[in-house]
Amino acid sequence: MTNARPMVAIIMGSKTDWETMRHASEALRAFRIHHECRVLSAHRTPSQLSEFIQEMEQGGCEVFIAGAGGAAHLPGVVASQTLRPVLGVPIDSSSLQGLDALLSIVQMPAGVPVGTLAVGKSGATNAGLMAVAILATSRPDLRDKLRKYREQRAAKILRETLT
Amino acid sequence: MTNARPMVAIIMGSKTDWETMRHASEALRAFRIHHECRVLSAHRTPSQLSEFIQEMEQGGCEVFIAGAGGAAHLPGVVASQTLRPVLGVPIDSSSLQGLDALLSIVQMPAGVPVGTLAVGKSGATNAGLMAVAILATSRPDLRDKLRKYREQRAAKILRETLT
Amino acid sequence: MTNARPMVAIIMGSKTDWETMRHASEALRAFRIHHECRVLSAHRTPSQLSEFIQEMEQGGCEVFIAGAGGAAHLPGVVASQTLRPVLGVPIDSSSLQGLDALLSIVQMPAGVPVGTLAVGKSGATNAGLMAVAILATSRPDLRDKLRKYREQRAAKILRETLT
Amino acid sequence: MTNARPMVAIIMGSKTDWETMRHASEALRAFRIHHECRVLSAHRTPSQLSEFIQEMEQGGCEVFIAGAGGAAHLPGVVASQTLRPVLGVPIDSSSLQGLDALLSIVQMPAGVPVGTLAVGKSGATNAGLMAVAILATSRPDLRDKLRKYREQRAAKILRETLT
Amino acid sequence: MTNARPMVAIIMGSKTDWETMRHASEALRAFRIHHECRVLSAHRTPSQLSEFIQEMEQGGCEVFIAGAGGAAHLPGVVASQTLRPVLGVPIDSSSLQGLDALLSIVQMPAGVPVGTLAVGKSGATNAGLMAVAILATSRPDLRDKLRKYREQRAAKILRETLT
Amino acid sequence: MTNARPMVAIIMGSKTDWETMRHASEALRAFRIHHECRVLSAHRTPSQLSEFIQEMEQGGCEVFIAGAGGAAHLPGVVASQTLRPVLGVPIDSSSLQGLDALLSIVQMPAGVPVGTLAVGKSGATNAGLMAVAILATSRPDLRDKLRKYREQRAAKILRETLT
Amino acid sequence: MTNARPMVAIIMGSKTDWETMRHASEALRAFRIHHECRVLSAHRTPSQLSEFIQEMEQGGCEVFIAGAGGAAHLPGVVASQTLRPVLGVPIDSSSLQGLDALLSIVQMPAGVPVGTLAVGKSGATNAGLMAVAILATSRPDLRDKLRKYREQRAAKILRETLT
Amino acid sequence: MTNARPMVAIIMGSKTDWETMRHASEALRAFRIHHECRVLSAHRTPSQLSEFIQEMEQGGCEVFIAGAGGAAHLPGVVASQTLRPVLGVPIDSSSLQGLDALLSIVQMPAGVPVGTLAVGKSGATNAGLMAVAILATSRPDLRDKLRKYREQRAAKILRETLT
Repeated sequence: MTNARPMVAIIMGSKTDWETMRHASEALRAFRIHHECRVLSAHRTPSQLSEFIQEMEQGGCEVFIAGAGGAAHLPGVVASQTLRPVLGVPIDSSSLQGLDALLSIVQMPAGVPVGTLAVGKSGATNAGLMAVAILATSRPDLRDKLRKYREQRAAKILRETLT
Repeated sequence: MTNARPMVAIIMGSKTDWETMRHASEALRAFRIHHECRVLSAHRTPSQLSEFIQEMEQGGCEVFIAGAGGAAHLPGVVASQTLRPVLGVPIDSSSLQGLDALLSIVQMPAGVPVGTLAVGKSGATNAGLMAVAILATSRPDLRDKLRKYREQRAAKILRETLT
Repeated sequence: MTNARPMVAIIMGSKTDWETMRHASEALRAFRIHHECRVLSAHRTPSQLSEFIQEMEQGGCEVFIAGAGGAAHLPGVVASQTLRPVLGVPIDSSSLQGLDALLSIVQMPAGVPVGTLAVGKSGATNAGLMAVAILATSRPDLRDKLRKYREQRAAKILRETLT
Repeated sequence: MTNARPMVAIIMGSKTDWETMRHASEALRAFRIHHECRVLSAHRTPSQLSEFIQEMEQGGCEVFIAGAGGAAHLPGVVASQTLRPVLGVPIDSSSLQGLDALLSIVQMPAGVPVGTLAVGKSGATNAGLMAVAILATSRPDLRDKLRKYREQRAAKILRETLT
Repeated sequence: MTNARPMVAIIMGSKTDWETMRHASEALRAFRIHHECRVLSAHRTPSQLSEFIQEMEQGGCEVFIAGAGGAAHLPGVVASQTLRPVLGVPIDSSSLQGLDALLSIVQMPAGVPVGTLAVGKSGATNAGLMAVAILATSRPDLRDKLRKYREQRAAKILRETLT
Repeated sequence: MTNARPMVAIIMGSKTDWETMRHASEALRAFRIHHECRVLSAHRTPSQLSEFIQEMEQGGCEVFIAGAGGAAHLPGVVASQTLRPVLGVPIDSSSLQGLDALLSIVQMPAGVPVGTLAVGKSGATNAGLMAVAILATSRPDLRDKLRKYREQRAAKILRETLT
Repeated sequence: MTNARPMVAIIMGSKTDWETMRHASEALRAFRIHHECRVLSAHRTPSQLSEFIQEMEQGGCEVFIAGAGGAAHLPGVVASQTLRPVLGVPIDSSSLQGLDALLSIVQMPAGVPVGTLAVGKSGATNAGLMAVAILATSRPDLRDKLRKYREQRAAKILRETLT
Repeated sequence: MTNARPMVAIIMGSKTDWETMRHASEALRAFRIHHECRVLSAHRTPSQLSEFIQEMEQGGCEVFIAGAGGAAHLPGVVASQTLRPVLGVPIDSSSLQGLDALLSIVQMPAGVPVGTLAVGKSGATNAGLMAVAILATSRPDLRDKLRKYREQRAAKILRETLT
């Protein structure tokens, strides 16, 4: 999926976050959006993180998605290094159930926004879908696909029966 | 500011939310982004809300910003009615200091994303800036303005002296 | 149970919520109250939700019960579309243990009340019982049944022995 | 307002709670619902509380509203002594901002439901409105008044302009 | 253990609380304090609760221990019906991890104190030990036993080795 | 008030805690209980604290009350140095509204109980009243005074009128 | 104070944090520790932050203190760029009372420690004192000063009288 | 590891805390820092704790690490008895997920600092690494080892591939 130029980059602070973040990747795949996934830490590999952000930007990447747990600085640090929209996914990886990650990501100071999604898998899926919505602002065909996606999910709910 | 077609819509659940949400408007003004601000409630004026969303979409609005306090359903309800990216601003209007608004906005189920910003003024400013960043994905000149904006804010910090 | 006209409607945002919400249904069954259960989402199937609410009202439904998890907008959205009393059941379906659902349901703005019960199974059972109590305000025979129900539960507690 | 038989009783644990609970009374007055307001404590005047509940029930009272702060036992204790629907209003009267009152009221065990509203004034107003909605299940004229009330509030929101 | 007159009463709101509350009983047994354990609910068996409290008082019971989960009213309701010292044990029986029980027990209004212990087993053990300490204020021999108990626990810690 | 031998000791970690803790002293005064109040810190004056505890015990003090804010170790440290019952009062002195003090006091490990009261003034008053209840277990005349005290407070509530 | 080589650096994310962080500076001054204070943002002036850290290290700075509010990334970002011990001070600057700052600072992942102090002024003072304690590990004279400092504070507590 | 004089002491309140605290020990071992681990309770073995602290100080110990759960007083009590830097590790051992331990450790009053690390294993590892950083302020060779340690961890992250 990396021979085409990626339009979205997904970054996570630890390999164990992939269990959550793959849901963002799956959402993008459902829309055939080329994207790149990488494990990079704001604290432990800061220079490689900066290089990756620059490389992605130069390749035309339009949206960054970053997921992290605990004192989750990754999305904010990404946002401080790019002008592209950055989406953050709090991951429940400490005893505090993701509340620490949520507050560390969403409470960014004025000037450096991170659009934050829900804690965990739903948030990762939604980060992927929001990236699609952002790309769709200048791509009407993507918006059509989004409409169909929502209709299919609605249809699935309506088919459900309780036993 | 409404004779041109608005690119961003700012919706809030109550007039008292304007004290917070005007910071989103000011951020957009700093970039000369035409936008429309409106008080509409997800619960009390649902049909007018739907009409406004449709009208905005047809006029070419690309990003929705919604702010609300308490059981803050407005951003999620807007997101359920548009395919454009929706940004949510939790407002601290109950005794629970905005924690209720934050969780009501950010914890959206998979399928209907709301990119959530910080509680209060910083969040409102950042919603405006994130809308600019989204618009800038297909408008290189806006990205240049964003870069200058950040540089000015950085310069302001560097000029500050402690006494 | 649907050939008679339902007096109570139970709505939930996802099929997985049935594990919790069936306790509301069981409470109603214990009083032989005809009711209808349905999976409908405030965000993903809003028009079908509106239709169902209207249909129920026209059929004489007197109380709505709605259960949801996360940013639980369903009870509030139902309450914004009916004048009948609406009872909300927060469901523990995210990493935040139902606190997000509780605050999203209970902190409704003035004008659109949702009578909120406890998080989870106890809350679902109590939503059923409170619906019975509401119906009983104009049906003395139901109140007699409620009295017996409470007496039986009290008797059960008094029979319990510790080992 | 007490020469007619009260249809709703409003009970609060302390005189200082009146500042909040009078909003429930005002909502009832807007619908010309006869009601009785009383300061009675679950812990400090338990026998007078029981007498008042009995007296109200015998007089035809159909809904109880109870507001309290801190370890707010009043609504649950009222609910344990009546079969009528009981609505609870958490009051922000301790340093913990009403979270203690909210959890003490809403987390009732299965068998004794309390329909809980928001912390503070909005919750008190909504307790009044929900009592009206419950009374309206057997009084179509009240439902018409409720509809007009909502329409007026919606109209008020739509008249609001931002400056 | 009931042929002698019980000096302490242990009350719990549900049989499932015994798993926690038996630690209070075990602490009392270690000091050979006669005590009575009973399942009684503040909401579902209020009159039997009152009778039990009176009966215990007349039999010379000097301390009450009450444990409950969720909206844990039992300790406060016991405290409102006796002048003897009442100790409360919050039980973790809801999705909110005992925070609801803790706040429902500890945040009692001025006038009706409940001495609250930790959530769960440690709290139950400590309720037993605190009852012993209270009884020991007028029984020097009990204080000697308490001293030995503490010394034994200290010795046990000092014997522990890490591997 | 110190020429007689004090039966209760009130200790607080800082002079600013007196604003809260004087309510414990006032409750004891209402019952003419001789008591001693002292500012002593578990962390900053540990040896003077130990001396004071010993001195009080030798003088016949039967109950210790300790109040502190933030990481409130004082009540637990007192409890580790005496076998008398220790009551703890959490004080709201940090930005976290007394939640830190509450958890630091109530969550004591098995073996060293602290009977914890509500955060702030109500808790301080109740600590005083609970000390009276403990002293009253072996002093019937005190129990009579307690009964009158409660009756007076109940009467005061019943006299209150709403305007 | 900057003509000598600073041994401690105090960094804060915004000029408004100085109101809190000056307490760290005052603690260092009381021990005549040369230190440098600077406003630098992890997100808005990242390159100047890196330069300052490097410059300080080369000048012999041994301890870094960083204070920030909201999604407080500054201490962690400093810690990722130096091997010297880093102390973090959470600042109460949002509606969430510093809980966001506390969790953003303390919950750092394994590998990049930040020694976190209390929220607000006490934490800032203690960051200064802990820096002194760290410097004192290789400077016995500083340890003597620390001992005297503690003795003076203890003496001050012991002089306090209650009125 | 105890025949050499220990430079760091690790103290924990209960043997069950070793599961967490051994990560601090392992971090120190990776740097070949001689250290001593001991189970000692602030409340149950206070005199042995004081003796151990004194003995360690006299043996040249430069840093103390203390871990505890619940009302975690151990780190603060250690800090009140030594002038060496004290690092605290909150342990998740109650139903409240370590929030109680975190607040009990970090919210220390001005004058007695405890440098607090994350809840659980990450925090224990980081306490060990921060102790190394403190020792390294006067030992350049240790700083070199720290640099290599971080490089190895960074390299490990960079080798990780997602599947």
